[in-house]
Amino acid sequence: MRTLTKDRALVEKLFHPMGVDGVYARSQQYEDVVQALQALISRRRPAGAEVLRFPPVMSGRQLEKQGYLNSFPQLLGCVCCLHGSDAEIGAAVEEANRGADWTLQTSSADLVLSPAACYPVYPLAAERGTVPENGLLFDVAADCFRHEPSRDIDRFQSFRMREFVCIGSPAKVATFRDEWMVSAVSLAADLGLPQEMDRASDPFFGRVGQLMAANQVEQALKFELLIPVRSEGGPTACMSFNYHRDHFGKTWTLVQEDGETAHSGCVAFGIDRLAVALFANHGTDTGDWPESVRALLRLN
Amino acid sequence: MRTLTKDRALVEKLFHPMGVDGVYARSQQYEDVVQALQALISRRRPAGAEVLRFPPVMSGRQLEKQGYLNSFPQLLGCVCCLHGSDAEIGAAVEEANRGADWTLQTSSADLVLSPAACYPVYPLAAERGTVPENGLLFDVAADCFRHEPSRDIDRFQSFRMREFVCIGSPAKVATFRDEWMVSAVSLAADLGLPQEMDRASDPFFGRVGQLMAANQVEQALKFELLIPVRSEGGPTACMSFNYHRDHFGKTWTLVQEDGETAHSGCVAFGIDRLAVALFANHGTDTGDWPESVRALLRLN
Repeated sequence: MRTLTKDRALVEKLFHPMGVDGVYARSQQYEDVVQALQALISRRRPAGAEVLRFPPVMSGRQLEKQGYLNSFPQLLGCVCCLHGSDAEIGAAVEEANRGADWTLQTSSADLVLSPAACYPVYPLAAERGTVPENGLLFDVAADCFRHEPSRDIDRFQSFRMREFVCIGSPAKVATFRDEWMVSAVSLAADLGLPQEMDRASDPFFGRVGQLMAANQVEQALKFELLIPVRSEGGPTACMSFNYHRDHFGKTWTLVQEDGETAHSGCVAFGIDRLAVALFANHGTDTGDWPESVRALLRLN
Repeated sequence: MRTLTKDRALVEKLFHPMGVDGVYARSQQYEDVVQALQALISRRRPAGAEVLRFPPVMSGRQLEKQGYLNSFPQLLGCVCCLHGSDAEIGAAVEEANRGADWTLQTSSADLVLSPAACYPVYPLAAERGTVPENGLLFDVAADCFRHEPSRDIDRFQSFRMREFVCIGSPAKVATFRDEWMVSAVSLAADLGLPQEMDRASDPFFGRVGQLMAANQVEQALKFELLIPVRSEGGPTACMSFNYHRDHFGKTWTLVQEDGETAHSGCVAFGIDRLAVALFANHGTDTGDWPESVRALLRLN
């Protein structure tokens, strides 16, 4: 018999490898927990939040306008297709049949794979006109993609993200984030998950990126809720609490009633990380999970 | 006021455009119907079917091995990323900032966007060893992508597909498909959807493809359940019933206990097309739908 590390054994129990690192087929038991988590988060949805569900792809131009390419070019996946006449496409296929790489003949379809669930919401919010005094709240979700192939149990290339987003005055956004940092700690505690909250930074690219990351930590723009998932190494960021200041407001001309640029913030739930964290902490069979956790997730 | 066609009015009620044709943000009411449909189909799941849920991306090599590139090169989306050293990626970003198309610097990440929900299941089934005498049944789902930008209400670039898949002897697969063609008609009737069943073919590429499509019709390898969705033009294929013969069995060496290559077939539910069909036929507000339809979907 093969000897498996605890993490690989968990992967084999929950998933089926699909031939590419960090891309997995999901079992029914795993998906049941994912659905239960999504439903639990829906029950905690902020009052008045508008629900929007995004497909796994979004406009490349919109994402570039938001500065993603400069900040995280190493993570971005774009959708490329064979364009042109039937003759041109046919020629590319024939070359592929002779062993050539057909993907070299493709060009951009003006779509990228969404790297986070909230990026499409800001241009949609801008179409609504002036941001009302009470701000705008959204509940968004998407299958996200980041190009970081890994065999770690807490790092998938394709994963699901859920977010609550607040757009409004700096005070509104600060209150929203502060309240969610408290709620999230208690949510994780109710799920029986050990945790710590820490200041954090995004994996900004390059030397300029290092300065941006340091600035992000210094100004406390990002916090992460860390939960043990892997059997070795430190805990894993399973939720994040982000204050964007006026970054998206400036990009999309989101304006408050007083004429000032709107600020924004979000709380992000790494749904797949949270689901794996539940299995890693409570065992590979949901039937053995603590009764309080099963009840909270309505698994009974 | 703008004058909208009935179809555009329906799109505006259910979706929010995301800046690319055939890519939409989905409203809560629409997603509630999608979830209700998925749950209804789960309740009709064939006994013994194994549930697998796939991410929106899959191995490019696996899909090519199955012949997709030859058959449908015009529809396929591959995932391309900036590879190389930090210096190389940084240079591509700088060029983009000077107005160049950064996507020209990308190369394949060995991933494609899944064009149908069942493609990843055959290599997974092959890992199980000999196909048992009773065959293998799967319930699979994925967010799919096909590169056919359109403003039609029944043609999205990113859409959800659900499938039941049968792998086994030709007789098993034929029975599976025949029974589902009957069940699907009654399911659509219970949903109050007008319908007709017809022989069909896939949109095979090029002149060779035309022969393949003609062959597919002649041999009755594909049927579609057509339901009126658009206000003009013919009805839309919302489910399909496919007999692959030994295509996937040969590709992945799926072997029956008697040593013969296994055959396969699937019934595919176009979840987004079915959901749009419900709204197109019953109205834009689920509260006004026939009571029997609401009850079947458990919308009450």
